[in-house]
Amino acid sequence: MTDNTSATAPVSRTPLTLLGTGAMGTALARAWLAAGHPVTVWNRTPARADALAAEGAAVAASAAEAVAANRLVVACLLDDASLGEALGGADLTGRDLVNLTTGTPGQGRARAAWAAARGARFLDGGIMAVPPMIGDPESGGYVFYSGSRALFEEHRDTLAAPAGTRYVGDDPGFAALHDVALLSAMSGLFAGVVHAFALIRREDIAPRDFAPLLVSWLTAMAPAAHQTAEQLESGDYAKGVVSNLAMQSAGNATLLRTAEEQGVSAELLTPYMELMARRVADGHGDEDGAGMIDLLVRAATRD
Amino acid sequence: MTDNTSATAPVSRTPLTLLGTGAMGTALARAWLAAGHPVTVWNRTPARADALAAEGAAVAASAAEAVAANRLVVACLLDDASLGEALGGADLTGRDLVNLTTGTPGQGRARAAWAAARGARFLDGGIMAVPPMIGDPESGGYVFYSGSRALFEEHRDTLAAPAGTRYVGDDPGFAALHDVALLSAMSGLFAGVVHAFALIRREDIAPRDFAPLLVSWLTAMAPAAHQTAEQLESGDYAKGVVSNLAMQSAGNATLLRTAEEQGVSAELLTPYMELMARRVADGHGDEDGAGMIDLLVRAATRD
Ligand SMILES: NC(=O)c1ccc[n+]([C@@H]2O[C@H](COP(=O)([O-])OP(=O)(O)OC[C@H]3O[C@@H](n4cnc5c(N)ncnc54)[C@H](OP(=O)(O)O)[C@@H]3O)[C@@H](O)[C@H]2O)c1
Ligand SMILES: NC(=O)c1ccc[n+]([C@@H]2O[C@H](COP(=O)([O-])OP(=O)(O)OC[C@H]3O[C@@H](n4cnc5c(N)ncnc54)[C@H](OP(=O)(O)O)[C@@H]3O)[C@@H](O)[C@H]2O)c1
Repeated sequence: MTDNTSATAPVSRTPLTLLGTGAMGTALARAWLAAGHPVTVWNRTPARADALAAEGAAVAASAAEAVAANRLVVACLLDDASLGEALGGADLTGRDLVNLTTGTPGQGRARAAWAAARGARFLDGGIMAVPPMIGDPESGGYVFYSGSRALFEEHRDTLAAPAGTRYVGDDPGFAALHDVALLSAMSGLFAGVVHAFALIRREDIAPRDFAPLLVSWLTAMAPAAHQTAEQLESGDYAKGVVSNLAMQSAGNATLLRTAEEQGVSAELLTPYMELMARRVADGHGDEDGAGMIDLLVRAATRD
Repeated sequence: MTDNTSATAPVSRTPLTLLGTGAMGTALARAWLAAGHPVTVWNRTPARADALAAEGAAVAASAAEAVAANRLVVACLLDDASLGEALGGADLTGRDLVNLTTGTPGQGRARAAWAAARGARFLDGGIMAVPPMIGDPESGGYVFYSGSRALFEEHRDTLAAPAGTRYVGDDPGFAALHDVALLSAMSGLFAGVVHAFALIRREDIAPRDFAPLLVSWLTAMAPAAHQTAEQLESGDYAKGVVSNLAMQSAGNATLLRTAEEQGVSAELLTPYMELMARRVADGHGDEDGAGMIDLLVRAATRD
């Protein structure tokens, strides 16, 4: 090293504690270690932290000890219940708790109140990445954060080491809500992909030739969500409609008949077609999909 | 014009007949007229061809007369039944019939046999575009073609005037199959988008802020179909799996609970979750989605 002070006074990175060294926790710990942060880890099954110890992490004997080690405490456990179990005996006073455990918006909100009652600032997170994407800025992976903006701003650089950061509001449920909304949309996408491959499955069409057509098409169609957003914002659900629900609904007959011909169950598509038919029957055949969103929202659960 | 022969001898473009001047037929006719093709049109309701007549199209008094006018005959009617009705009295001997009417693979195959019995070559098409995209090479719109390769090759340039062309095989059902498979996948995509917007509907989250996150996410996830194709090709459904079905299926509980919390019906997602749970219960929790495709294919309808 040319700067000979660095051996004695390395650049100081915020030290942090990480609870949970499963697949995701381990990837996170590695990214922070690689970025020069002192990391204290704890895992319920101690052996699962051995590799990280060899890579420079300090290993705490209990979650309480790990929490005591640093002000910034990140948790990445299986689910909300495991977070409650792990932190049951820990003193959270004065801690900054960042919860990267996947949960529901309600769990995020309840956990924020729970943390506040224990004297901790709280930030909930939703990880939009798989472990191989963590620590790789090129991967496009990122984490939604919501809750204490002060905590987020203060630790922004530290939080950015493993993945990109997107703060989505002080409602501590919003990170989980954004996370789950995107995962839910992905389920729909994948259901469509599964049905499409099923249609060609018994034909002399190579999946490898079909996939690029499918991917280009879905990539071209995804931006239709911008128009849906505009319709929701304006309240005018027929705004800019090219292919209206009446046309789409008529076209569904061809989709169903094709599935039948190809010996494919249409079970993944029928609920959407039925919702569309309901909206058309309600007299909204001139609209696009926005009105179906309102049909899906049965009742407010929060007021 | 600098080339003074053009007034008397314009570049000769293949003349063609177009049956059906609805929204799509009109867009197609305009694109061919703009490209310099002499176009003869026929529409069941004559008034709907008036605008095209004013733009230079010849209007035939009957479908039979329109078919007699040119060797290349393109049909873009409502559905397969309307094609049968329209062409009932026409002499197809020696004609090249290109059917751009949306249908099923079975209808495409039956129509090919029907055309052959009447002495015509036949090409079926599936239009992957809406009318405003027709004639605009920048739009990305294109048409799947299948059936007579000789017909396709011979009229390739003419067919390329309104939209891109993709020949997908001599099985006359393949254009419709590709078309319907892509539209089916799009239904899944849109179902996911509808569910996602429903989740945030009653929250203080602007649809306009949410849409870009949703579009980027879906665009990033769509290429997963390439991996599915590789798994189908190799028969190894656990190949390269990062987030396996067991994990995804466990995560579905959070998606369902969030829908419940947000007062949103999960009807659009549950069939996919149930199919996944079935596959996991069958002992395939280490796989990705490919095995769900086989579950969906109930029985071969053709052998
Ligand atoms: N992996 C991904 O692709 C991915 C992507 C996005 C988000 N996430 C989220 O990240 C979180 C962790 O996932 P992962 O992939 O790391 O899962 P994992 O490999 O199964 O690890 C689960 C972790 O939770 C711990 N744990 C489970 N029950 C516990 C309890 N009752 N008390 C204390 N600790 C408990 C486990 O400890 P033991 O070792 O003792 O069992 C382990 O550290 C989850 O919320 C997941 O949804 C994961
Ligand atoms: N529009 C789109 O976004 C789009 C996109 C891709 C594919 N397509 C396909 O293109 C085809 C035409 O769609 P379009 O949008 O042009 O529909 P359209 O505007 O409703 O026009 C339908 C056409 O079919 C004719 N027709 C209906 N029943 C008939 C019958 N029994 N005999 C003779 N002619 C009959 C109509 O004649 P009349 O004027 O006498 O009713 C009209 O010319 C459909 O197969 C559609 O699926 C459309």
